[in-house]
Amino acid sequence: MHDTLRNLSHLPARQAISRLCRLFWEQGWASGTGGGIAVREGHTLLMAPSGIEKENVRPEDIFEVDMKGCVTLAPLTPGLKLTACAPLFLAAFRHRQAGAVLHSHSLDIVLAAMTVPAGEPLRLTRLEMMKGLEGVGYFDVHEIPVIDNTALEHELEERVEQAILAFPKANAVIVRNHGVYIWGKSAIHAKTQAECLDWLCRAVVRMNASGISHLTHDRSQPDLPQRALAVIS
Amino acid sequence: MHDTLRNLSHLPARQAISRLCRLFWEQGWASGTGGGIAVREGHTLLMAPSGIEKENVRPEDIFEVDMKGCVTLAPLTPGLKLTACAPLFLAAFRHRQAGAVLHSHSLDIVLAAMTVPAGEPLRLTRLEMMKGLEGVGYFDVHEIPVIDNTALEHELEERVEQAILAFPKANAVIVRNHGVYIWGKSAIHAKTQAECLDWLCRAVVRMNASGISHLTHDRSQPDLPQRALAVIS
Amino acid sequence: MHDTLRNLSHLPARQAISRLCRLFWEQGWASGTGGGIAVREGHTLLMAPSGIEKENVRPEDIFEVDMKGCVTLAPLTPGLKLTACAPLFLAAFRHRQAGAVLHSHSLDIVLAAMTVPAGEPLRLTRLEMMKGLEGVGYFDVHEIPVIDNTALEHELEERVEQAILAFPKANAVIVRNHGVYIWGKSAIHAKTQAECLDWLCRAVVRMNASGISHLTHDRSQPDLPQRALAVIS
Amino acid sequence: MHDTLRNLSHLPARQAISRLCRLFWEQGWASGTGGGIAVREGHTLLMAPSGIEKENVRPEDIFEVDMKGCVTLAPLTPGLKLTACAPLFLAAFRHRQAGAVLHSHSLDIVLAAMTVPAGEPLRLTRLEMMKGLEGVGYFDVHEIPVIDNTALEHELEERVEQAILAFPKANAVIVRNHGVYIWGKSAIHAKTQAECLDWLCRAVVRMNASGISHLTHDRSQPDLPQRALAVIS
Repeated sequence: MHDTLRNLSHLPARQAISRLCRLFWEQGWASGTGGGIAVREGHTLLMAPSGIEKENVRPEDIFEVDMKGCVTLAPLTPGLKLTACAPLFLAAFRHRQAGAVLHSHSLDIVLAAMTVPAGEPLRLTRLEMMKGLEGVGYFDVHEIPVIDNTALEHELEERVEQAILAFPKANAVIVRNHGVYIWGKSAIHAKTQAECLDWLCRAVVRMNASGISHLTHDRSQPDLPQRALAVIS
Repeated sequence: MHDTLRNLSHLPARQAISRLCRLFWEQGWASGTGGGIAVREGHTLLMAPSGIEKENVRPEDIFEVDMKGCVTLAPLTPGLKLTACAPLFLAAFRHRQAGAVLHSHSLDIVLAAMTVPAGEPLRLTRLEMMKGLEGVGYFDVHEIPVIDNTALEHELEERVEQAILAFPKANAVIVRNHGVYIWGKSAIHAKTQAECLDWLCRAVVRMNASGISHLTHDRSQPDLPQRALAVIS
Repeated sequence: MHDTLRNLSHLPARQAISRLCRLFWEQGWASGTGGGIAVREGHTLLMAPSGIEKENVRPEDIFEVDMKGCVTLAPLTPGLKLTACAPLFLAAFRHRQAGAVLHSHSLDIVLAAMTVPAGEPLRLTRLEMMKGLEGVGYFDVHEIPVIDNTALEHELEERVEQAILAFPKANAVIVRNHGVYIWGKSAIHAKTQAECLDWLCRAVVRMNASGISHLTHDRSQPDLPQRALAVIS
Repeated sequence: MHDTLRNLSHLPARQAISRLCRLFWEQGWASGTGGGIAVREGHTLLMAPSGIEKENVRPEDIFEVDMKGCVTLAPLTPGLKLTACAPLFLAAFRHRQAGAVLHSHSLDIVLAAMTVPAGEPLRLTRLEMMKGLEGVGYFDVHEIPVIDNTALEHELEERVEQAILAFPKANAVIVRNHGVYIWGKSAIHAKTQAECLDWLCRAVVRMNASGISHLTHDRSQPDLPQRALAVIS
């Protein structure tokens, strides 16, 4: 694994996508042929293809798309399709000036979202790993939107866009029973954001499974907002 | 791991089997000397041997079998036996025109099947990863047969065949307290099917362990069939 | 990992021990500097050293010991000690004609043994993976002794020996809150035995965590012995 | 992984830090850009940088710091910052003559500490893996301090120092909802300490999740101190 990631930040976007796809499959975030990655280079968006196992995406298998969503360069490899995530990736590129957007099927994120009541966001507070998320502090109550799934991926577009606009501090949108869209300033930044959110959701799920809460014995600041107490309990 | 899988779809069947066996062992699906893989090339079936640790199967260790189940070419390596799964693999090749059949001892699939009442199939609904299974949609209630185990593997033949015929939409048969037979159009397709089913069963088991359900807060479509509600609860 | 295991069965014992130590550490069975491996070549026992991280044992770090437990060849590497497991390994070599004995700190095996009442063995039944254990069938009720731990490893000797004699069908002795001794005809056979027992114990523990049992919906044979029903419930 | 660790104890400190950082990321202890490592060479402290993914730290990216905490040599790589853990690392170097100090975000350690009442230490007893911790025996009741987290890492300094002085037998300080500082005589010794504590905390958490305790059926010594019984229950 180490060789695949050494100097990721210095790689051309096509190679970075290829290596991140493999990493994502190794993490269990891209089982089957799921998951997706898009990286922006200027006004060009490079996107991993659909219909292929993600640990096997080569630099020459990448699609190039403009900021309107039109394919400007398709790979010659037969059988590859533009990912159905394309319009969803575009929403984050347009509204958030993202440098890279990831779509992961992380089971921990999917399970954590199952504990969130309909219409509510996932609320995280008082977990140090939150500081790995862009602009978030330890005592914040950080909200990540959770939207309902649809039969077809492209039908999610409007919901994802609304969630992005409604939660300007979040850099992720969780799709219930499905996965997550998460973005950052660059490929490597989006990757670290995904790792942090995964750790946090794994914590939420494992606390549930063990019947423990990180708030029970925490005395670090007595004026904890009540709604934060609802995160795990 | 990446090197072993690069261009798997372009590998000759013997090499693909060798690499998939290793991958399966790495996933925990072929502990001890368990698990098995068969790939069809025209009318010839290539099968990983029994009696050997699966991460150590070489291309020259593979058996060749005809569509009647007769060995047409045995490996020269001493100590190898034709897998006892051979008649079960044949059932999927004959009745479903499978290109490859896998037998995995995935603990998550075994545990998920333990939650299924006797005589019932495993029912899956409203999990995006279902769309990775051939011909299955998000709102479907997808049924995968669960049959009881027998003392000897070859005694399973009739039960597997009946299950295949009774559940024409499923591309897998789960054997209670044992493992799963799962197939696809090719080696790589069978692998992606196995990964998706594994993710789905891991979700079922972890929801059980956490006392949560993916249906509790889901509002995406109100007319959810009642029987689907029985999947997890 | 694949390279380290290819043709393990054809490796000289010193190299096989080195590679198995690394594999065991990767599996989490030899955290810190724990765990141990001994392989017999004729009347010579080759043992991995103590006091060194197990993923870093080289062929020249191995001790040679005779069947009376006397060191006949010590490695030149400074700082290495003969493992405190040596007398326990000897018990299996003497009473069972083992070709290799492993000592693992597998957490799943330790947790599974916690569910076993004091003075009782771990009983396993109706899990296909049991067939990976030497001489065990699916409908058997297979008993593996569980003994209490002691302050010092060498004090376990008498208890391990008694357990070996009292449970002639088992090829493992579990030490409560500690780990397991497990043996086989060769290094590779001992490894497959350890993998199978690990799978089985992981199943027991995860069934406990999920509140499910493999016996609840199993109809494969109605005359299940009552004591078997006590395994999980 | 094996190549990265072979002969770690013989590596220069800068290379050892680079390889341990990668190992830590692979273990899930350094998700995002979290975690940290400091190794002492005489009176010079070498520290992995902040603001970079840990699996990608090169020997030339390391900071050199004196025992007063002043940077004596900064890496030329742009964008790197001295870790905010520096004053916390210093506390262990000064008060305990540590050869290496690690900061891990191990989820198992964080979860185990959640079960500890406010103001109490984590108490461990009767788990063989405790013997992997420096100076600890099987029947000891070993106490590891748990302190509350702060908004900024450097604000932890006083609390960490107090905990180090109050618990002279412990070689770790757990920070609630955050992670752990753990040290040893050398880089490799600190690594084995971290592995052992991780195993122990994983045991505590998984016992909680399964509703089992390692003390329930343990008869090895009847005069078990009562406070030890409170560890898991």
